[in-house]
Amino acid sequence: MSEVTITLWPDGRIIKAKTGENLMEVLRRAGIKMDFPCGGCGACGKCRVKITSEVQPPKEEEIKLIPERELKEGVRLACLYTVATDMEIEVVFKNEEARVLERGIMGSFTMDPPLKKRRFFVRDSKDALSLEERLTMAVGCPPDPECRLEILRSISRGLPGEGTAVIKNDKIIGIESGDTTGKFYGAALDIGTTTVVLSLVNMVTGREEAVVSALNPQKEFGQDVLSRISHAKKGGQFLLELQKSIVDSINGLLEKAVKKAGIDKKDIYEMTVAANTTMTHLFLGINPESIGSAPYNPVLKRGIDIKAQELGISISPFGRVYCLPAISGYVGGDIVAGILATGFYKKDDTALFIDIGTNGEIVFFDGREMVACSCAAGPALEGVNISCGMRAADGAVEEVRISEDVFIRTIGDDKPKGVCGSGIVDLVAELLKIGFVEPSGRMVFPDKARQIASPNLAARLVEKERSTAFVIAYGGEQEDDVFITSRDIRQVQLAKGAIWAGIRALLREKGISPKDVRRVYVAGAFGAHLRPESLSRIGMIAGEWTERLTFAGNTSIAGATMCLLSGAKRKEAENIAGMVRYLELSTMEGFDRLFAESLKFPEGDR
Amino acid sequence: MSEVTITLWPDGRIIKAKTGENLMEVLRRAGIKMDFPCGGCGACGKCRVKITSEVQPPKEEEIKLIPERELKEGVRLACLYTVATDMEIEVVFKNEEARVLERGIMGSFTMDPPLKKRRFFVRDSKDALSLEERLTMAVGCPPDPECRLEILRSISRGLPGEGTAVIKNDKIIGIESGDTTGKFYGAALDIGTTTVVLSLVNMVTGREEAVVSALNPQKEFGQDVLSRISHAKKGGQFLLELQKSIVDSINGLLEKAVKKAGIDKKDIYEMTVAANTTMTHLFLGINPESIGSAPYNPVLKRGIDIKAQELGISISPFGRVYCLPAISGYVGGDIVAGILATGFYKKDDTALFIDIGTNGEIVFFDGREMVACSCAAGPALEGVNISCGMRAADGAVEEVRISEDVFIRTIGDDKPKGVCGSGIVDLVAELLKIGFVEPSGRMVFPDKARQIASPNLAARLVEKERSTAFVIAYGGEQEDDVFITSRDIRQVQLAKGAIWAGIRALLREKGISPKDVRRVYVAGAFGAHLRPESLSRIGMIAGEWTERLTFAGNTSIAGATMCLLSGAKRKEAENIAGMVRYLELSTMEGFDRLFAESLKFPEGDR
Repeated sequence: MSEVTITLWPDGRIIKAKTGENLMEVLRRAGIKMDFPCGGCGACGKCRVKITSEVQPPKEEEIKLIPERELKEGVRLACLYTVATDMEIEVVFKNEEARVLERGIMGSFTMDPPLKKRRFFVRDSKDALSLEERLTMAVGCPPDPECRLEILRSISRGLPGEGTAVIKNDKIIGIESGDTTGKFYGAALDIGTTTVVLSLVNMVTGREEAVVSALNPQKEFGQDVLSRISHAKKGGQFLLELQKSIVDSINGLLEKAVKKAGIDKKDIYEMTVAANTTMTHLFLGINPESIGSAPYNPVLKRGIDIKAQELGISISPFGRVYCLPAISGYVGGDIVAGILATGFYKKDDTALFIDIGTNGEIVFFDGREMVACSCAAGPALEGVNISCGMRAADGAVEEVRISEDVFIRTIGDDKPKGVCGSGIVDLVAELLKIGFVEPSGRMVFPDKARQIASPNLAARLVEKERSTAFVIAYGGEQEDDVFITSRDIRQVQLAKGAIWAGIRALLREKGISPKDVRRVYVAGAFGAHLRPESLSRIGMIAGEWTERLTFAGNTSIAGATMCLLSGAKRKEAENIAGMVRYLELSTMEGFDRLFAESLKFPEGDR
Repeated sequence: MSEVTITLWPDGRIIKAKTGENLMEVLRRAGIKMDFPCGGCGACGKCRVKITSEVQPPKEEEIKLIPERELKEGVRLACLYTVATDMEIEVVFKNEEARVLERGIMGSFTMDPPLKKRRFFVRDSKDALSLEERLTMAVGCPPDPECRLEILRSISRGLPGEGTAVIKNDKIIGIESGDTTGKFYGAALDIGTTTVVLSLVNMVTGREEAVVSALNPQKEFGQDVLSRISHAKKGGQFLLELQKSIVDSINGLLEKAVKKAGIDKKDIYEMTVAANTTMTHLFLGINPESIGSAPYNPVLKRGIDIKAQELGISISPFGRVYCLPAISGYVGGDIVAGILATGFYKKDDTALFIDIGTNGEIVFFDGREMVACSCAAGPALEGVNISCGMRAADGAVEEVRISEDVFIRTIGDDKPKGVCGSGIVDLVAELLKIGFVEPSGRMVFPDKARQIASPNLAARLVEKERSTAFVIAYGGEQEDDVFITSRDIRQVQLAKGAIWAGIRALLREKGISPKDVRRVYVAGAFGAHLRPESLSRIGMIAGEWTERLTFAGNTSIAGATMCLLSGAKRKEAENIAGMVRYLELSTMEGFDRLFAESLKFPEGDR
């Protein structure tokens, strides 16, 4: 047994092995995370590598599993290959599909990050090339007239020599000494009006290493987009204050994530950001004022790529930040991410995408074109502005069933403290079912309740906060009761009415009736714990759709992750932003009537 | 008489006039500096403008002076035109030749700066365009995916509105409110190892508004390029120190220039820099260490365009700095500027370009190709390391004639204090002529001198500083004498020998004999006050060349100015850098012998 050298391309990373060793074992030891679903017996064909140096003849299993053309190119299965000499290997990520993250559904794609690392060796030479030219040749990038000063400054006597280049779009954006190809991470970020989620991703393997989240600290300047815009437009320092607060929060999340994953912050080289248009503006320090009034056009719609340092994001000194493009002032990069992640527009049948938050964004695809709108649903479906509303945290009622009595489930199975979004929808749906709430949204009087329900249930109708209320869970003291009031139901009605009206406006625009919508995607944290039946019972979606519904989860972070790991997907995101036609509901003829009609709850069977 | 509005394109600047006024007078009043050599009588045809709005029929003189095609396009002479209505005018800079600056010869070119200002008016509209898209449309630039954050940040509620855009290569790099097209200046900079010259240029008219200069403050870190490199390579903070010292000096020059011209520093939008390769590296904060040892390759050769802020240059916040490309580690952007300014390579006969400073750079063109070399002449020809040497300042002997007696001329006609470069060359030439210096470089003994010259002259041969010396001018006290020693003559010999050897090496490379060189350009402050005969007498140039010689002055600043005012010339500079083949003399076979042979002064007729 003697020691040999294996060079891994496209990184140029060098690893050591001994002759006679199994290549799969060697790669595993080197931390190259490949899938070996069959356990390494040559059955699944997942561990393909391309050997560009001299290669052994293919084995029987390989001939079966690998197309002839690829065999000729040197493609083999690592699990069947015995190391015999120095080797040069291309690790074939090309056929690897990134896995579906827990956080949101994500279509399959080829991993090929726009930002890469590449090992280089500068050969000594006697010609008259500048060190810059020698470096770009060694790295294999074309000369870049925009090459930044800091790169030139970092080229010192170290050349001729070797190192690792950080490359973006075939341009060198950083050089590091030694082999740093294994230290290569990225972050995908979802900036919501209410929450911020950050996913730390290994850029070599595509795996998520950690996911962390926090409340958007801009909350203190206003709960919704419009109040933040009002704050920003007061003057430069207010805008700056909003920007600083979100940047600080992101830096905090980065800190938390790297601690969790046990890596160094400076090994993060890119962050992709999906956010609604106003959040993107505030993050970039761009005045969002124009989004606040008709015709609601933002300053920036296209995707943008910026130095992380310029934004105060503390990752690698070469780090970049990419913000996904927006469709309009109220349909942002988060929706583009959602379209990208679900890929629903790629089949030629009809599909609807609904992202429910403080604003509801809806995209409809009729098989040819996407149209989108945004509707101000208000925060009721997030548990905000509801008497006993709360965020989806321990103790929040998230599921409700009413038959003879009220059955509830709380998050963490804790003592009930309030109701979160999905609990509210469930509750209203159940109250409609038993007739305690009428289609008009009115709550029945106690005497009527006693006629239609058990005394047990009827007794739950009480007066709270000078309004009729239904007690969901009794507390030790009366003030600990968890309940819902007539006024709360009105809030839910406004929210679901806004969304249903938006859906109908899009369908009407395309001349499609609800029954002809084949697929429905509900994105957002809200949808994750919801029963489709409840959504349909309160009339936020059509009755037919319960069977056609997919809860897509946080597609914003999923889309951002795809843009982090795939140049093709990033390009697709740019294209999507240009493909979707935006429909402004506030100026649409007849929309007011549509909205009024949409407020009513559906007549039920009781 | 009523008031009318005249819009000036390509700026979009608006000026007011009264009907019946003469257009030339109106333009003059508005500060548009055009040439009216004939005084405005329609005789010279220099004051052409193109009227793009309704235009009066051409007058007789105009029909004579302006081609028919241009007449049809609305070209008229401003001096003959009477304002009658609102007008739109293109000021035809196209045919204007930039004037030869005092500071260096400059070929003619069309003024069309890469960096421009353009007036814009954003129309209000109801479509879904982002404010950024609306702005780029109004300015007439294609959308720019690299558009910088600060532009986006500066787009505020002001849009729709109007303003002035700063544009570079069809990209918006800044926006300003109101009409600032009249406030548009640039600076051309020549960073020499010894001196720094800055020319402040009006970017609307192309005129030089002020020229200022200073000693390069890096002098305190070493007189020549190599000692600066040694300082820089001691470590990061030493490099930084060198950079800071030159940047501070440039900021000081800018301050001085704007005070002289009565303008505001923030109205300067671009600075072009011609310098030798090491000075460029130091200015940019790039380690020049690799220039200091074989194979003498610099980090950076190509031209580079950087934000002024990034370098600490205080001009407009949108300001840019462009450094001309270099040919090699020892043939820099200053030589590219010289080639550009003289344009000597554009005729298809042979030409030689010599830039004499501490280093002598020589470029030879054989009608097809340019070859260049650099030779270490030493500072003798700048009056440095010479007993009574001094820089070209008041009291410096700059011209010497010797017949029966010694006749001198000093700068400022002051009492002689020392000898400057041109004086030294003149003096050595004259001493050769009268036989006091022999071809070997040796100074004759006093007894020999008495045989060949008047006692008066012979008496001037004395012993000074333990060496034979010739007194040029007697001071009140003996220690005030201005003289030259044998050792000094050896220094001159080394300098002229280095240059003559370099010239011969280039000619030999191309197989051309000195007599076949048609044109010779001598650039640099040194040449400006020199007699060609003296240069040929000491053997720095061939005897035949005295008639073919042009003293080109500071072609470094001339070339930098051209790059400031013309995109085509900047492109040409980039091309030149790639066209010139560099010959490394230190590794050239037989060069040592060539140098030894070149040390001898030519045999004279006495």
